[in-house]
Amino acid sequence: MRALTLIPVHGIPEIRPGDGLAALIADAAAAQDTPLLDRDCVVVTQKVVSKAENRLVAIDPDDRDARRALIESESVRVLRRRGDLLITETRHGFVCANAGIDLSNVEDGYAALLPLDADRSAQRIRDGLRATRGVDVAIVISDTFGRAWRNGLTDVAIGIAGLAAVADLRGTHDALGRELQVTEVAVADEVAGAAELVMGKAAAVPVAIVRGLDPTWSRDGRARDLVRAPADDLFR
Amino acid sequence: MRALTLIPVHGIPEIRPGDGLAALIADAAAAQDTPLLDRDCVVVTQKVVSKAENRLVAIDPDDRDARRALIESESVRVLRRRGDLLITETRHGFVCANAGIDLSNVEDGYAALLPLDADRSAQRIRDGLRATRGVDVAIVISDTFGRAWRNGLTDVAIGIAGLAAVADLRGTHDALGRELQVTEVAVADEVAGAAELVMGKAAAVPVAIVRGLDPTWSRDGRARDLVRAPADDLFR
Repeated sequence: MRALTLIPVHGIPEIRPGDGLAALIADAAAAQDTPLLDRDCVVVTQKVVSKAENRLVAIDPDDRDARRALIESESVRVLRRRGDLLITETRHGFVCANAGIDLSNVEDGYAALLPLDADRSAQRIRDGLRATRGVDVAIVISDTFGRAWRNGLTDVAIGIAGLAAVADLRGTHDALGRELQVTEVAVADEVAGAAELVMGKAAAVPVAIVRGLDPTWSRDGRARDLVRAPADDLFR
Repeated sequence: MRALTLIPVHGIPEIRPGDGLAALIADAAAAQDTPLLDRDCVVVTQKVVSKAENRLVAIDPDDRDARRALIESESVRVLRRRGDLLITETRHGFVCANAGIDLSNVEDGYAALLPLDADRSAQRIRDGLRATRGVDVAIVISDTFGRAWRNGLTDVAIGIAGLAAVADLRGTHDALGRELQVTEVAVADEVAGAAELVMGKAAAVPVAIVRGLDPTWSRDGRARDLVRAPADDLFR
């Protein structure tokens, strides 16, 4: 297996509703002499996707009631409350804090909601890059979620195109020839988390190129493949 | 921010109790012309650490009662049971399936328990590399855990030396000049997950080099920093 390279893409401008992300990403990557290549995976943070798709809503950040109402309107279920923190399940099935709504890196007085269907957002960027630049890349839309039991946030995949969500190694054999037991690896989440390592939260790098992923993972995963069905979930 | 490179280290031999991992890792990295460099982070999977530290116990894999008793003896609390699957809290505070005990990639009739103190294991490898090779690297011991709410497993850090567990960006400012709210990023977990992308489960690559991490993360994190205190945990 060869090395994997993660390249931050600098120079993406402040995104406005209606902006075409595919062209902006391709241009910024080319401008820093790391043009997109076939089989790259491009990780794009949720926030720029939400801005491009005009998923912004006006909100007074100090109005706690309005904030809570907005979170609840974006949720199908509230799992836990502690003070102003709500852990909810979004319409997509994601379990995260405050329905994934974020006030940081958004203009004052606005909050960014999650994309309605980030798998579709990813597919749109992928199709755009193929149509206008002739390059065949996978796309992961990432967002920063907390976890149960462990401190710290990690970036995970909320939208995918052209990459497996989960690589199922069940039934393959380990190095001692025995059948492996449970090895469904959430590769799209690991790709999202890896990309965050070169993005930095405050550095305004919303895009990273992941180069050198296992080519057998080039298939049409969906972020919803990463959502554990409530009936299978021991913690919902 | 510069690019990050992940390099799988091939050619690590089958590990036996008492083996010195530092020398084996340094030699294998040098043999494939990617010698360790100062400021690299070396990710080592739990299994080779457990083998080197002789954390192997004899067990009949078909004896379900013995298996359950072993899991319980390695746990301080059982959170959930479903059939043969137990989600438990280990002595270290990790919440994972079957107390992290694994039967794959271990010789028939043996199971590998988690290291007693994987932070110390990491420090030992780090010290060994510094003493015998004069190279100053960080070490992450990784293991493959499931998550609540999301399908698929990801690799996380169970032992750390020379790297922040969590990079606290609280109080820094976002690209629009506002103070960021919650941005404690679990960088050690993201490093572990990223490394898995070049290891592959069945490929017997138990070590990867992560080159190019943010130098401000070079500090003495501990895996226990990643364990959320039960009192703060809404899901325990």
